[in-house]
Amino acid sequence: MQSKQQLSTFFLFIIFSLLILGCFSSPRKTIRSRKPCKEMVLYFHDIIYNGHNEKNATSVIVGAPAWGNHTILANKNHFGNVVVFDDPITLDNNLHSQVVGRAQGFYIYDKQDIFTAWLGFTFVFNSSEHVGTINFAGADPLMNKTRDISVIGGTGDFFMSRGVATLMTDAFEGEVYFRLRVDIKFYECW
Amino acid sequence: MQSKQQLSTFFLFIIFSLLILGCFSSPRKTIRSRKPCKEMVLYFHDIIYNGHNEKNATSVIVGAPAWGNHTILANKNHFGNVVVFDDPITLDNNLHSQVVGRAQGFYIYDKQDIFTAWLGFTFVFNSSEHVGTINFAGADPLMNKTRDISVIGGTGDFFMSRGVATLMTDAFEGEVYFRLRVDIKFYECW
Amino acid sequence: MQSKQQLSTFFLFIIFSLLILGCFSSPRKTIRSRKPCKEMVLYFHDIIYNGHNEKNATSVIVGAPAWGNHTILANKNHFGNVVVFDDPITLDNNLHSQVVGRAQGFYIYDKQDIFTAWLGFTFVFNSSEHVGTINFAGADPLMNKTRDISVIGGTGDFFMSRGVATLMTDAFEGEVYFRLRVDIKFYECW
Repeated sequence: MQSKQQLSTFFLFIIFSLLILGCFSSPRKTIRSRKPCKEMVLYFHDIIYNGHNEKNATSVIVGAPAWGNHTILANKNHFGNVVVFDDPITLDNNLHSQVVGRAQGFYIYDKQDIFTAWLGFTFVFNSSEHVGTINFAGADPLMNKTRDISVIGGTGDFFMSRGVATLMTDAFEGEVYFRLRVDIKFYECW
Repeated sequence: MQSKQQLSTFFLFIIFSLLILGCFSSPRKTIRSRKPCKEMVLYFHDIIYNGHNEKNATSVIVGAPAWGNHTILANKNHFGNVVVFDDPITLDNNLHSQVVGRAQGFYIYDKQDIFTAWLGFTFVFNSSEHVGTINFAGADPLMNKTRDISVIGGTGDFFMSRGVATLMTDAFEGEVYFRLRVDIKFYECW
Repeated sequence: MQSKQQLSTFFLFIIFSLLILGCFSSPRKTIRSRKPCKEMVLYFHDIIYNGHNEKNATSVIVGAPAWGNHTILANKNHFGNVVVFDDPITLDNNLHSQVVGRAQGFYIYDKQDIFTAWLGFTFVFNSSEHVGTINFAGADPLMNKTRDISVIGGTGDFFMSRGVATLMTDAFEGEVYFRLRVDIKFYECW
């Protein structure tokens, strides 16, 4: 009887050891949950300086190819334009809604034959709702309905976050205004 | 007696199974330690090219808004200036201390109505002390006493690191020199 | 007999508890595997616009120091040049091989006294093989045979990836063409 008991205890020991070893040792391939630990939907609004809108402009051309300048986006799909921005963030798609944070960073148009951009920017929050930052980077093939970029880090309320953000062009007016909807899904929360 | 024994063994099995399942399956929300696994304090020194300091300059204006140029930082709080840098890193706040690495990357001034920057850069080490790199990105609202940015990755001695770095402006002289203190806290070490 | 049994069960409980506590609580320092969970080798090809190669050019100078321009890379090791690119990715080192994706982003030359760059870019895939993006950032001291940068995130097939990419200059022709070999090692796969 006793040896049977010991045997079952021994098997339990082996089973747990294997489970725990699995937890520690393997390259982390199959384990992670794809259920977000936090989600947010936000909008930001970009008004590009065009020589006539100094007061309203939230972004400005700072780099251009040899055939361009810093007041008008270059031809060839703006290939080579670098734009720096400080855009208001709102909870809905209304430019005049309460500003809950700022989207700060830059985008570059990086392709000759179609509109495509590359983005590096931060959502900066300092309100009763949120204090902290979310950092983003990634390609933005802006003719696609949705585009995924990476949440590469965060601070404050978003300490050490990682995730994926889906961008959608919610509206645009010529080459002066556009609005992006950002669906942020965090998969690493601390 | 035996069935009681079996019962207790069975309960143990259930408890551990639940614990282990918890370890594997849940979105990682509550588990992570906020105690750094590694800490460093470093300083870096930025001397901006102004047309007269070619030999000493460690950074240079490479982008500007329509109203700016590449020798003098633009008005409106330098909004739209892009600066590329290769700055010496020291262990203390003395520009003439031994250089332990280089801070290489860029910053952009991204706001019209206050000094604010966005940073993408790397600490590059190649000494007896450290070999490897630490990569950073984030917003730098430089009028704040402290600003947090993300450690987005690392290589060599800092392989796969992630964390948060706190920036402090340790000194500045007009628009030619500034020194940043960086408190790096790694929360993911490999 | 029974108490001996209970004792051994009790010890098992303690051992597993400690193991599981270890799994949850400690700063993640010693646990991670350095065996990649995924590896890829790819090449990308950069043809810099020089005023005469409009049709072929895949990249373009968009930022320059005060002493430079946007058609020719500046002297002093191109210090201060910002280049935006949309480069074809191939599986081997032949520029004319099938394009399997695009490398999109920018590099900056950031040092006066030697060729060194800083890179922020994305591999964009949309083929039968791969759909998704890989995001990179890091320093590229391009006179070194190999240089390590960080994989800071991914989307689609590369959802939430992190890792290290080793760059090698596979070929270059004057200041118009270069080819990089990229060995990507993912250490976080989901």
